[in-house]
Amino acid sequence: MSSIKGIAASAGIAIAKAFILEHPDYTVTHRKIEDTDSEIAKLESSLDASRAELEEIKARTLQELGEKKAEIFESHLLILDDPELINPVKDKIKEESVCAEFALNETASQFIEMFQNMKSAYLQERAADMRDVTKRVLKHLLDLNYVNPSEISEEVIVIAEDLTPSDTAQLNRNYVKGFTTNIGGRTSHSAIMARSLEIPAVVGTQNVLTSAASGDLIIVDGLEGMVLINPDEQTVAEYRKKQESYAEQVEEWRKLRSEPTVTSDGVHVELAANIGTPNDVAGVQDNGGEGVGLYRTEFLYMGRDKLPSEDVQFQAYKTVLEKMEGKPVVVRTLDIGGDKELPYLDLPKEMNPFLGFRAVRLCLERQDIFRTQLRALLRASVHGNLRIMFPMIATLDEFRQAKALLEEEKSKLISEDIAVSEDIQLGIMVEIPSTAVMADQFAKEVDFFSIGTNDLIQYTMAADRMNERVSYLYQPYNPAILRLVKMVIDAAHREGRWAGMCGEMAGDATAIPLLLGLGLDEFSMSATSILPARSQISKLSKTDMQELAFKALNLGTAEDVVELVNQAVSK
Amino acid sequence: MSSIKGIAASAGIAIAKAFILEHPDYTVTHRKIEDTDSEIAKLESSLDASRAELEEIKARTLQELGEKKAEIFESHLLILDDPELINPVKDKIKEESVCAEFALNETASQFIEMFQNMKSAYLQERAADMRDVTKRVLKHLLDLNYVNPSEISEEVIVIAEDLTPSDTAQLNRNYVKGFTTNIGGRTSHSAIMARSLEIPAVVGTQNVLTSAASGDLIIVDGLEGMVLINPDEQTVAEYRKKQESYAEQVEEWRKLRSEPTVTSDGVHVELAANIGTPNDVAGVQDNGGEGVGLYRTEFLYMGRDKLPSEDVQFQAYKTVLEKMEGKPVVVRTLDIGGDKELPYLDLPKEMNPFLGFRAVRLCLERQDIFRTQLRALLRASVHGNLRIMFPMIATLDEFRQAKALLEEEKSKLISEDIAVSEDIQLGIMVEIPSTAVMADQFAKEVDFFSIGTNDLIQYTMAADRMNERVSYLYQPYNPAILRLVKMVIDAAHREGRWAGMCGEMAGDATAIPLLLGLGLDEFSMSATSILPARSQISKLSKTDMQELAFKALNLGTAEDVVELVNQAVSK
Repeated sequence: MSSIKGIAASAGIAIAKAFILEHPDYTVTHRKIEDTDSEIAKLESSLDASRAELEEIKARTLQELGEKKAEIFESHLLILDDPELINPVKDKIKEESVCAEFALNETASQFIEMFQNMKSAYLQERAADMRDVTKRVLKHLLDLNYVNPSEISEEVIVIAEDLTPSDTAQLNRNYVKGFTTNIGGRTSHSAIMARSLEIPAVVGTQNVLTSAASGDLIIVDGLEGMVLINPDEQTVAEYRKKQESYAEQVEEWRKLRSEPTVTSDGVHVELAANIGTPNDVAGVQDNGGEGVGLYRTEFLYMGRDKLPSEDVQFQAYKTVLEKMEGKPVVVRTLDIGGDKELPYLDLPKEMNPFLGFRAVRLCLERQDIFRTQLRALLRASVHGNLRIMFPMIATLDEFRQAKALLEEEKSKLISEDIAVSEDIQLGIMVEIPSTAVMADQFAKEVDFFSIGTNDLIQYTMAADRMNERVSYLYQPYNPAILRLVKMVIDAAHREGRWAGMCGEMAGDATAIPLLLGLGLDEFSMSATSILPARSQISKLSKTDMQELAFKALNLGTAEDVVELVNQAVSK
Repeated sequence: MSSIKGIAASAGIAIAKAFILEHPDYTVTHRKIEDTDSEIAKLESSLDASRAELEEIKARTLQELGEKKAEIFESHLLILDDPELINPVKDKIKEESVCAEFALNETASQFIEMFQNMKSAYLQERAADMRDVTKRVLKHLLDLNYVNPSEISEEVIVIAEDLTPSDTAQLNRNYVKGFTTNIGGRTSHSAIMARSLEIPAVVGTQNVLTSAASGDLIIVDGLEGMVLINPDEQTVAEYRKKQESYAEQVEEWRKLRSEPTVTSDGVHVELAANIGTPNDVAGVQDNGGEGVGLYRTEFLYMGRDKLPSEDVQFQAYKTVLEKMEGKPVVVRTLDIGGDKELPYLDLPKEMNPFLGFRAVRLCLERQDIFRTQLRALLRASVHGNLRIMFPMIATLDEFRQAKALLEEEKSKLISEDIAVSEDIQLGIMVEIPSTAVMADQFAKEVDFFSIGTNDLIQYTMAADRMNERVSYLYQPYNPAILRLVKMVIDAAHREGRWAGMCGEMAGDATAIPLLLGLGLDEFSMSATSILPARSQISKLSKTDMQELAFKALNLGTAEDVVELVNQAVSK
């Protein structure tokens, strides 16, 4: 038995066999062959093996996930049998006396490149399909040992270097009980995904991938951030107990679904959820969210080949507002650029995208994009309790410019006799240090603040939160961050405004006591974090937490703060 | 006559003819030719023309700048006559029936690539030489109209899109009276270079390059940031007067060389200089610097193929300390990584180098590099008044780690019976927002602060200062920056420490009244800014400036602050 310490990324305990997810090396070399006939026979048998696999997956998917999901494998089968792909491969083998894998790779690459260069989302998807099929056949030709994560059919713990968005999309929740990765932190994509799927996860282990072998028994402890490899029977029994008591706790939490969030000394705070699409609203309701604290509108702009129309946006905003039934919905205007690219906008590459032309900076220049979104929001405003929030505001000027554009579009709509709510709160993300430092001036002009800690921390510490080499500087508990948060909350309260937080920190059990003490009014987090947070807050006294926060502000380091909280509060 | 507003980058007035510095388009196309003999004749005549040019430049350089500088053109002539280059070009023309420019370009590229891939600084220089020679011959083959800036032989104003370090290195100070560029700001490379060369310059004009033609009469007003194209006689006369009165002012300033820097109400502050090499000390003395506020040690590590030894470093530090004759010298430890690369360190590419693995972050991991520098500094400490400063400190932990390494090396040296000063002040750059916000905690452990505004501004505003699209956010006068500066100064004074500034802001005439009012103790700037700053400060009352700074801290925007200063203070 061995154990590895990592970062607790998603709560819960999972016990299952290891599934090693390593992308194999599909590199092919140009190999001359003499017997072209037997090479073609080899190709045929690899095609047959691929066909058999696909038929099986298709049947299983049909049974478990329905017709819609099975269609993709039907189209893979069609590609396998497409003479326009297969005949040129065979010709190439014969005419050039090259090995089958090289002939296949060359021919498929040409098709893939052709599809990719066409500006149609449909054909670009065909490129992705053809890439998948090519890999499947290559796997047989090269005799690679690889199971696609979508084909997992027994209960496993997935172990990987890292999980990409496409990996996680393919994971079958019925079988993947937990996962653990070498890299990543609490705010990495895979961690956020794990929390949203409610799969226990431990990330940033450095070396779990080399320490575990396929089939090893693995325990992922997403509560403590531990991974155990081949534990003895007694340990397994202990963890089964821990798993049960966590399940009981989850049941307890579920009882808080319809309760308000109140501290032990009777102070109410609001627990809201971060969402990306109208579909996410179900999860908010399911977890007793008191509102949407951050609706990331980027997803409306992604995965398409042109800007979304005003109507497409209007429908999305209206749906969310209606589903939330009068509860507040804070919509963040487009936060694109920097690391989040939209191919059709054709933005120039930047040296430091995190310090670049993004979010409101881009929207103030590309007013066509911005005005369309503002109109859609204004039109949707009559269908619920809309609050609008601008991201990446660094100066008062930027806020004033953005507000002026909103006012202009509002006047236009009114003159067109289109109904607009008269009661839309207008706020900003506080995610740039200058804005936190100037919060007293901003508070005179905005209706609310929402502190975006993911970015605020990386700018305040001058450390790219995606860069592993400086990840030690991503310190939510650094007193510098707490001081900036305090400046923002105090400034809001002096002007009678409210202050929320929509970064990952808002749902973090170590941060919550401090944020409560600093006076935060609204905590917006992953929907699945809401009930544990509500439970935690119900046991904390705001007066005590004020004292705790005061002490934390005067400490020197993040470690000192964590120690203070751990001693004072049971989480 | 037309005039263009730009950014005043280097003070003074220059009046001369326009020299348009545009790098021509050396793109060659693969062109089939039939008459290969006449193509070879064309090559020969281009080689002859290039040879004649080089002979002339070599003779002129020898006369004006001496033998050493003329050598480079001798080596260019050798390349022109090198049969190993020229014969393959001729063969290529004959055998492949291609045009001479294509044959030359292909052949030379192979040599250049080969030289570049060799890890020898000598051979890499040969690559640069071959590139220069190839361009010269291509210029004739393609009939391009281009004069290399090093060949300017009459008084001119250089007009360019931007000036690269290699452009500025080639400018002949005897003839280049001023320059103006389309892009750039006060802190861009070309602006800093202009101030150090004392050439009037206006940058960031957006369109001077398209507005002026070669030979136009140009006035560059580096005081007001104006460029005038083909001014009438009366205007020229006015500017001649302005030029004279500026020259008189410069003379007045020179009288302050040996004076201390004292405000009108009798408060002394220290004006120090930023330097990069021991050679820069002459300029510091010439301009009456009261110390070196920032010795950038990076240059010791650049332009070589391996790390500088302890002895190489010791000699450099010792030289600077001795030349400064007991005046304080603040040496910043290695600030490399991010955008400043050292090829031989082989650091991985980063997505956001400004938020990456650089400066003290790198030094704490690469302790071999750091300890060598610390030892060299400690050994040099007995030769003058040394102060050591760590760059990019974001947390107390980092400072404590760096200090511990210094103490270790000090103990080792003492145990080796090597003399070390007992009186070395140890400080940090404050260039990361977290450190400014936590200055009260740092002040308990450091001897001094030096505020690095170039970086502090870019992190506080979350805007890459090299990125033109967000350059509007590089706001030294934003009240957020002034507030952070105040936090640092107040924290230092409460603990009896001193606070300096070594960013470009310290020498800026609009910032100086504010910084004086905020209580800054030491201003470190380009040596050439020291005397104007001393003159300005002598006319300001610290008490009045305290009032001014207090007002500025409570304004909303950078524009408001500039207006306030302009109304209150004549610069």
